[in-house]
Amino acid sequence: MERFASRRRCLIPENFFNIRPLLPSLPPPPLHPVTGSPLVPEDLRAIFAPGFVAHEAATETLVPVPAKAMEVLELWRPTPLVRAVGLERHLGVKSRILYKYEGVSPTGSHKSNTAVVQACLAAADGVGALVTETGAGQWGSALAHACTRFGLRTKVFMVRASFRQKPGRKAMMNLFDAEVVESPSASTASGRAASAGDPDHPGSLGIAISEAVEEVVTGGCAKYALGSVLDAVLMHQTLIGQEALAQLREMGCEPDVVIGCVGGGSNFAGLAFPMLGEVLKGRMKCRFVAVEPEACSSLIRGSLRYDNGDCAGLTPLLYMHTLGRDFVPPPIHAGGLRYHGMAPLVSHCVASGLVEPLALGQDEVFRAARAFLNAEGILPAPESAHAVAAAIREALEAERQGFAMTILFNLSGHGLFDMSAYAS
Amino acid sequence: MERFASRRRCLIPENFFNIRPLLPSLPPPPLHPVTGSPLVPEDLRAIFAPGFVAHEAATETLVPVPAKAMEVLELWRPTPLVRAVGLERHLGVKSRILYKYEGVSPTGSHKSNTAVVQACLAAADGVGALVTETGAGQWGSALAHACTRFGLRTKVFMVRASFRQKPGRKAMMNLFDAEVVESPSASTASGRAASAGDPDHPGSLGIAISEAVEEVVTGGCAKYALGSVLDAVLMHQTLIGQEALAQLREMGCEPDVVIGCVGGGSNFAGLAFPMLGEVLKGRMKCRFVAVEPEACSSLIRGSLRYDNGDCAGLTPLLYMHTLGRDFVPPPIHAGGLRYHGMAPLVSHCVASGLVEPLALGQDEVFRAARAFLNAEGILPAPESAHAVAAAIREALEAERQGFAMTILFNLSGHGLFDMSAYAS
Repeated sequence: MERFASRRRCLIPENFFNIRPLLPSLPPPPLHPVTGSPLVPEDLRAIFAPGFVAHEAATETLVPVPAKAMEVLELWRPTPLVRAVGLERHLGVKSRILYKYEGVSPTGSHKSNTAVVQACLAAADGVGALVTETGAGQWGSALAHACTRFGLRTKVFMVRASFRQKPGRKAMMNLFDAEVVESPSASTASGRAASAGDPDHPGSLGIAISEAVEEVVTGGCAKYALGSVLDAVLMHQTLIGQEALAQLREMGCEPDVVIGCVGGGSNFAGLAFPMLGEVLKGRMKCRFVAVEPEACSSLIRGSLRYDNGDCAGLTPLLYMHTLGRDFVPPPIHAGGLRYHGMAPLVSHCVASGLVEPLALGQDEVFRAARAFLNAEGILPAPESAHAVAAAIREALEAERQGFAMTILFNLSGHGLFDMSAYAS
Repeated sequence: MERFASRRRCLIPENFFNIRPLLPSLPPPPLHPVTGSPLVPEDLRAIFAPGFVAHEAATETLVPVPAKAMEVLELWRPTPLVRAVGLERHLGVKSRILYKYEGVSPTGSHKSNTAVVQACLAAADGVGALVTETGAGQWGSALAHACTRFGLRTKVFMVRASFRQKPGRKAMMNLFDAEVVESPSASTASGRAASAGDPDHPGSLGIAISEAVEEVVTGGCAKYALGSVLDAVLMHQTLIGQEALAQLREMGCEPDVVIGCVGGGSNFAGLAFPMLGEVLKGRMKCRFVAVEPEACSSLIRGSLRYDNGDCAGLTPLLYMHTLGRDFVPPPIHAGGLRYHGMAPLVSHCVASGLVEPLALGQDEVFRAARAFLNAEGILPAPESAHAVAAAIREALEAERQGFAMTILFNLSGHGLFDMSAYAS
């Protein structure tokens, strides 16, 4: 088998893939946070741009990629599908290990996929600014970059733990002209309530989301953008899995297991859902593994129930695996995985037995990152390193049992902007 | 015209393009630094790996890309050729502005092209380690990354001014397991002589090259790697121009002017030489502009004569535009352009009237970087911003004269690792 599927023979998909029409059952609908009744598009339009709400409500399996978004996506897509021959050799396994590499995007992670689409949709709707939150800074950077390309202003509430650990990410957002605010901040009621006067409160994604949503609701002209969790965001990321399917076909192989790390769930779903679609149509057989950090394991340690996506209870109630909206995760390095909830579609797939959850400790994950760097010459983002570690586990277990399989994982971003985390 | 040449229909070239056989005349040959007689391959093998020396001595127009190097290059090549529609609109010009974007490489610049080839050749020759110098850190990062992929150790002498300004670049090299030494260092005779006891001597590329070469000559098992200047390095970079030619054909256009920034000259030559080859064959008409910083302008303020590539006089004497090997450039932000000399082939093309030199001041260059970021959503490396500024000049001048032309420049790297320079 070739080490690479030739990128030049793979096309960027013209449509996003919507898994919902293919699922045997759907998760319970989102509820209005105040009335408790099922959300209607009008409710969402109070927060999100109309074009985004239309994507969230999509009922077709294929939803066209906007032409102006495609112009930007072409800068780095299709992304490479790579056979990790160096890692296979390092592990001494017969299994084939493949990774889809999203670190070639302008801000170094898969987040740029949905950021470009959301900025494009907002600009088409005449929205002047997007407000969001960011944990590790990947999402904030991606959105700031995308907004620059579509002439939108950006405001980012950045979780304090990351704000202080990652000045480079803040500087990057500032370069893209984004206003970056340390969260919990004193400028919103949610921020003041969450910090309770503690200026060193580490913050959380849940708190930062509350602040961003509050800013949009009380402001007016800006809309909110979310980097994961919602169906539309997962759908935007399916460019990854659709490309990978075409590239796998070109390589003449099918995966036995597909792996992604999960914080909100979008990079995992982006790779897995198009393949799960094939499985549901009976065209393919394959396992799916969603990997979380042990310190913030909503799929395994959380409960499946309605909860808010944010801390203050301003966002819709989502039916998902949650550690509780007021859970403040420990300051692990994989800041992008420090989230109390999970995408309802990923939660539903886990509850339905279509996807297996796996929680891994930080030491194993860092050892995997190091091994991958040495064997493949790419430093994974701390988040993506969870997927690397799970792929290594699968390969070693198959070897122990004496068989070979094809393992595919999503290398959702590089770690070149997270060197302080690796250094410590 | 499409905004993009489709990358999927462009192939990575199978050969490097060697301009030498096509030039009407050649520059005087390199001389041995001690004997003063023309260099023979044996002399070079004292410093460089044999495979690299063979590339330096190549007489054919096409030299095959090693298969194992191709496997790595495929991670990000072909790179996009983009029409800067945002910049055209911002400037209000009729001219078409195109850029070849090398910032998609693993370390964010064109340097990874030759780094991968040099590491590949050294590994094939059984060399255990490569020693080099770095200014801004782009070359050192690129080589450290490439060495990781081919199982080689790396030692980098880093110019002190950058070492102190850019801790992120140093951290990146350390991550790739490179040993990074502040230059001038106390560990070599050249370093001790250059610093003359001043622990805050800012250093220069010339001094750092001396230290690296001295380390190789007095050490033994390691070889030296150079990131620019030499014919072979320029030849490795011609992947850029060959791809661009194919992409321009696909877009159905030809450039009227081709622009690149020059420090040692490799990114400029990489884009320009394949097109200059077409011009020399009478198949194309086009101007070529090499852009330098005013503060370190060897092509315009230097003299064309034999000089050493380094400060201590350990490297061969090269016939080139030079500010003098003991010139210590002011600490401008574009650290990669702080070099006293110039690639002999670029110098020769300037002296022959095939290439026009242009020197630009730092303020104009930074304004261009800012305009490009706002219009195109990509932050150029401070070095590459010189090419952006020159492209803007060409477009505005054409507009003033009432005509439209096609301007192509090399966006040799992104500036995401140089944010401290932009911030200050």
